[in-house]
Amino acid sequence: MRRISVGALDDIARGAAVLGTGGGGDPYIGKLMAQGALRRRGEVDLVDPMELEDDDVVVPSAMMGAPTVMVEKIPRGDEIVNAFKALETYLGRPVRATMSIEAGGLNSTTPFTVAAELGITLVDADTMGRAFPELQMCTPTLYGVTATPMAIADEKGNSAVINTVSNRWTETLARTLTVDMGCSAMIAIYPMTGKQVKETCVLNTITLIERIGQTIRTSRERHADPVEAVRHATNGYLIWRGKVGDVERRTVAGFARGEATIAGIDEYDRQSMRIAFQNEFLIAQTKDEVLATTPDLITIVDDETGEPITTESLRYGFRVSVLSIPCDPRWRTPEGLAVVGPGYFGYEVPYVPIEERFGATNGPSQAG
Amino acid sequence: MRRISVGALDDIARGAAVLGTGGGGDPYIGKLMAQGALRRRGEVDLVDPMELEDDDVVVPSAMMGAPTVMVEKIPRGDEIVNAFKALETYLGRPVRATMSIEAGGLNSTTPFTVAAELGITLVDADTMGRAFPELQMCTPTLYGVTATPMAIADEKGNSAVINTVSNRWTETLARTLTVDMGCSAMIAIYPMTGKQVKETCVLNTITLIERIGQTIRTSRERHADPVEAVRHATNGYLIWRGKVGDVERRTVAGFARGEATIAGIDEYDRQSMRIAFQNEFLIAQTKDEVLATTPDLITIVDDETGEPITTESLRYGFRVSVLSIPCDPRWRTPEGLAVVGPGYFGYEVPYVPIEERFGATNGPSQAG
Repeated sequence: MRRISVGALDDIARGAAVLGTGGGGDPYIGKLMAQGALRRRGEVDLVDPMELEDDDVVVPSAMMGAPTVMVEKIPRGDEIVNAFKALETYLGRPVRATMSIEAGGLNSTTPFTVAAELGITLVDADTMGRAFPELQMCTPTLYGVTATPMAIADEKGNSAVINTVSNRWTETLARTLTVDMGCSAMIAIYPMTGKQVKETCVLNTITLIERIGQTIRTSRERHADPVEAVRHATNGYLIWRGKVGDVERRTVAGFARGEATIAGIDEYDRQSMRIAFQNEFLIAQTKDEVLATTPDLITIVDDETGEPITTESLRYGFRVSVLSIPCDPRWRTPEGLAVVGPGYFGYEVPYVPIEERFGATNGPSQAG
Repeated sequence: MRRISVGALDDIARGAAVLGTGGGGDPYIGKLMAQGALRRRGEVDLVDPMELEDDDVVVPSAMMGAPTVMVEKIPRGDEIVNAFKALETYLGRPVRATMSIEAGGLNSTTPFTVAAELGITLVDADTMGRAFPELQMCTPTLYGVTATPMAIADEKGNSAVINTVSNRWTETLARTLTVDMGCSAMIAIYPMTGKQVKETCVLNTITLIERIGQTIRTSRERHADPVEAVRHATNGYLIWRGKVGDVERRTVAGFARGEATIAGIDEYDRQSMRIAFQNEFLIAQTKDEVLATTPDLITIVDDETGEPITTESLRYGFRVSVLSIPCDPRWRTPEGLAVVGPGYFGYEVPYVPIEERFGATNGPSQAG
């Protein structure tokens, strides 16, 4: 167990945005919320999942909705406390710890706020190893762990506790409640035992994103190439370099959907790449070729600073590098691909691991 | 307290359809469900609300959704038991009795099923004195009683417990959950104390609808005019007689909305009347004149049999009489009209009590 201070959240939020693959909500807002909570309530203890007792009750927490809305409708702060209280009332048992549902964006730091507000421990783990747009897209789903009972709450004081027959149904019911609640809400979901966390989650992701954030910061301090630093810290691949052209985005059914075009520069000159998103970036392709697809991570970073760019802050004229990072191996199984593969999102292309697409060109083996 | 047998449900369901004003779901399905439950579980005790202890916990139960869907998607029977269990878990207190949320259609008999399945008492009361399409349209709302915590459950096994900041918000969240659940769901709502039931609800409505149902049946057995019998039993007014023409209906946002035209016969010859509905009939008007509006009841009955006709069974060619019945006086206050008056439903006409519109022509004073 180690204590996380207010200052450490800068690196954590920056690193979280890398694994957020454009989604998971604006890490800046998540960081401000978490820093405010830590200042008011005291620092948070981060526990290694292997230190959990098998029968500890752990409940991941997150913000749900369209990131385009979240950046304008800033949480009040006590929604998530209401959601936890509603769930504890329902469970009839105290919650020992919380954790991230996703290692991306706002939702990497949301559980810091919850841990501080409720005075509970934070587990160094998440359930995706990245960000994904839907609630069933969590590694516990692959082990038969149910997402419910889950609680959802809004800033007005409305809340609900849901019980469903499948994690896909959890997504359906929570999504329309989120839309009703104004396209953003706070959730407490996937209540698990310590044993389930150890067996079914992606472990030590907070430590990973803190390290990624540190790498970006120190590379800038050293005047090193921050894009190369991100690539190296994530075992990722540089798949494109260019200038952002058209960005088309719309908020549909509680999601931020859209597509961006990135005109190539350097060795990518005279070509253009399209990247589609549903909260997160899902597929990157040129006219002729698929470059990367979900479940591997696709991350856009600022060419100068190495700062990751979320779908909602992507703008015409930005000079960017596009990286792809290998996903958790469990997403690459047939069961994993059924939940988060390109076909689920409507892209009729086979999944090819990013190492196979780019391993020979600029992979981690050539790095560092 | 008196015991309700399987046989009594015929009269109760028939009378319920009169106060259902076209909505509240098909009473036939509600009756079959209730009779099945009584046969399996034993007869149900109907208690006068004045016999309740002040601190008894009473939770009304109902089916929610579009009646057009409910008649095709017949409840499995244990949804409502699941909803009650979810709510009891949340309340942490046993429920002593259930009652009707509305004195109309399916939902008059739904609580018989619940009482039989759960082995609890049924209270002789409801919260509308008729049927209305939305959850906040209950007399307890006028006294500040909250609709939540409420539970909602579907036939697949999904359920939710909701807590909202207003009864209007309860309607919003429960309605979209109902749409997700397939446009029909079972609910347990407005948990109240015995004291609150006595002070805020419409009392003895089960006894009233049983008497209305008996009157229709016996008038047919005596070869008397069943329409006149309904009118007399309800203190209602005959406002139209005619033949059903076009019926336009659509299922929108979980409601059955539409409009029917009724060509006049007898003294109404050469004219046509339009009647609009959102689950329930809301306004009846000719080209020149408003005949009746919500919150007074508008009921269409078969001219031959006196059987009430629901919006979803209304068909071209039916020969019908249209009755209007005075509503509970609390709906006629400014607070009541704000919740269920014509303006709420988008009709910019003033509310005029039906006695003022028709008192001089064929009112109760001319009856019997």
